[in-house]
Amino acid sequence: MRELRVCHIIGKGCLMSSLPASPGGAVPSETPNFVAFDDFLKLDLRVAKVLDVTEHPNADKLWLLKIDLGTEQRQLCAGLRGYYTREQLLGKNIVVVVNLAPRTMRGQISQGMLLAASSDDKSKVIILTTDADIAPGSKVT
Amino acid sequence: MRELRVCHIIGKGCLMSSLPASPGGAVPSETPNFVAFDDFLKLDLRVAKVLDVTEHPNADKLWLLKIDLGTEQRQLCAGLRGYYTREQLLGKNIVVVVNLAPRTMRGQISQGMLLAASSDDKSKVIILTTDADIAPGSKVT
Repeated sequence: MRELRVCHIIGKGCLMSSLPASPGGAVPSETPNFVAFDDFLKLDLRVAKVLDVTEHPNADKLWLLKIDLGTEQRQLCAGLRGYYTREQLLGKNIVVVVNLAPRTMRGQISQGMLLAASSDDKSKVIILTTDADIAPGSKVT
Repeated sequence: MRELRVCHIIGKGCLMSSLPASPGGAVPSETPNFVAFDDFLKLDLRVAKVLDVTEHPNADKLWLLKIDLGTEQRQLCAGLRGYYTREQLLGKNIVVVVNLAPRTMRGQISQGMLLAASSDDKSKVIILTTDADIAPGSKVT
């Protein structure tokens, strides 16, 4: 715990002494403690293609997505029904954390978590995608 | 350690018993152990807009990106010079891990890591972006 704090302070010092002043200002006070690169490497992020989109039978905010990960297909529950139509999602490349333990959401299995950007008030939710096409299952780093 | 293994096995069993057989087959043997959701939450992923792109003076594979994170601007070193031109990156929304400790790469500070998908042999590298525009600094979850 103490080690993490020391690292954080050194990191900030390094950053501030090495950079010219920027119009956006310094690192905001809400910046969380730094994480180790190994923490990032623990996560397995992959590109997936959306093969099918159906309504979750018991949750009106959730889509059930059938996705292609290259070597396998999976089902995700995604809270996108207020933001994306079925047609907008079909065929899209999405980005998924594939090594979270599967969880059941109102009776349906969700085998991963789709990544999306959102505004603070959640009025806007925009999924991540790839800048150009790449094979399903491609690793994200 | 034992707890993690048990979780992994339960996860697999749950997954296989709840899903119809898929053409892609079961979870591949190289699937890593599951990570906890808290491990994902440690990472701070944000949308950033690319404001400027210049050549790294000492590394011919690296671009120096000036990025807007809403409340601040930062510099990233990105190994994209073989894959993206300056013009292809300018103005683009990218996705950045913002709470890794800054590191110096051949004399230039890199204050975050851009996310990109790549083929196994690295012949293809495609950056992640947003499916539609959203404010720089928007949180990714």
